[in-house]
Amino acid sequence: MKSRPFVFINAAMSADGKISTYDRRQVRISSYSDMKRVDELRAGSDAIMVGIGTVLADNPGLTVKSGEKNVIRIVVDSMARTPVEAEVISRRAGPTIIAVSESAPLERVEALREKTEVIIVGDDSVSLSYLLAELKNRGIERLMVEGGATLNWSLISEGLVDEIYVYIGDMLIGGKTAPTLVDGVGLKEPMKLELLSVEKTGDGVLVKWRVL
Amino acid sequence: MKSRPFVFINAAMSADGKISTYDRRQVRISSYSDMKRVDELRAGSDAIMVGIGTVLADNPGLTVKSGEKNVIRIVVDSMARTPVEAEVISRRAGPTIIAVSESAPLERVEALREKTEVIIVGDDSVSLSYLLAELKNRGIERLMVEGGATLNWSLISEGLVDEIYVYIGDMLIGGKTAPTLVDGVGLKEPMKLELLSVEKTGDGVLVKWRVL
Repeated sequence: MKSRPFVFINAAMSADGKISTYDRRQVRISSYSDMKRVDELRAGSDAIMVGIGTVLADNPGLTVKSGEKNVIRIVVDSMARTPVEAEVISRRAGPTIIAVSESAPLERVEALREKTEVIIVGDDSVSLSYLLAELKNRGIERLMVEGGATLNWSLISEGLVDEIYVYIGDMLIGGKTAPTLVDGVGLKEPMKLELLSVEKTGDGVLVKWRVL
Repeated sequence: MKSRPFVFINAAMSADGKISTYDRRQVRISSYSDMKRVDELRAGSDAIMVGIGTVLADNPGLTVKSGEKNVIRIVVDSMARTPVEAEVISRRAGPTIIAVSESAPLERVEALREKTEVIIVGDDSVSLSYLLAELKNRGIERLMVEGGATLNWSLISEGLVDEIYVYIGDMLIGGKTAPTLVDGVGLKEPMKLELLSVEKTGDGVLVKWRVL
């Protein structure tokens, strides 16, 4: 097993496990107090990671309001589809790394390289284990993953996640095709978690799990 | 608005909102202590309702271990697909009602009628509002819904649910196509809930919501 940072997923979902609507419209699930918690989690991490789906759907800046430290922002983007004008690149708040695969079109890689750092790791898709090993080499000890459903699945199914923090918002979204906390193929046998804590926070619930 | 019973959904889901695996294999999500709670909820209800998908996938008996009362079991089954040997019919524990639509094949309806009561309510699919009004007429004041994902969606999207109790088990299931607490088309705008209570129970979390 390669050495890697401590990896935790932080996410907000509806009471029925959805992270957005069936038509992928961004829904504010978090309460104000939860947004403060998320900001503090970011500030306490060395890097924040998101998948390309989240960049394309939500265009997050992933900036940190509290804290002094520059938190590194990482996009897992096998085909180098991150727009060069994406907030995660253009909003200056610390370094941004786009992790792509060997299969990414060269002109896309070159265009991104003019704006920020690009790491090529993996053949058809980004090798997450190699990427995490590289991040560890660079001194990243604590990595916060902010989704979405596909990146969460990839990391979980490869056994690369230590803890999962879920804010459950006071709403239902529904939908057979709405993105959930963990999409992908799905497990044949459930993966065991250990409940670390549960608390009422704002109008919702914050649950922390350890992956066993 | 038609008069109807108090309707609550009780369900167990994984930490990522799934009620079974992508290949619909039944997963024991509930802990032992939660199963006791579910039995008590059944005993405190006048009737228990499930959808045909749940009957076909899990073949539940829906019997009540505690309590004296005969709890009525109701299957929402638009096309009358409930097998005549299904546990919900064959396991004698109180009356069973199969609610079908006008579109159900007559021979299926007749076959079921030899075993138990069949109500025809609705044209292409079961009219849940009429069914609930009929149940209220029969003196059912408190109806427990035990899923699955499609029945939950139908009831919620028609505004026929008062409260939702969710046991969140200490496991991940994942999967884009795995059934979730609420499937169906999905809402365009989230439906607001009010958090009634949250507690650690067994190795999981029990959350109670009121539908606003």
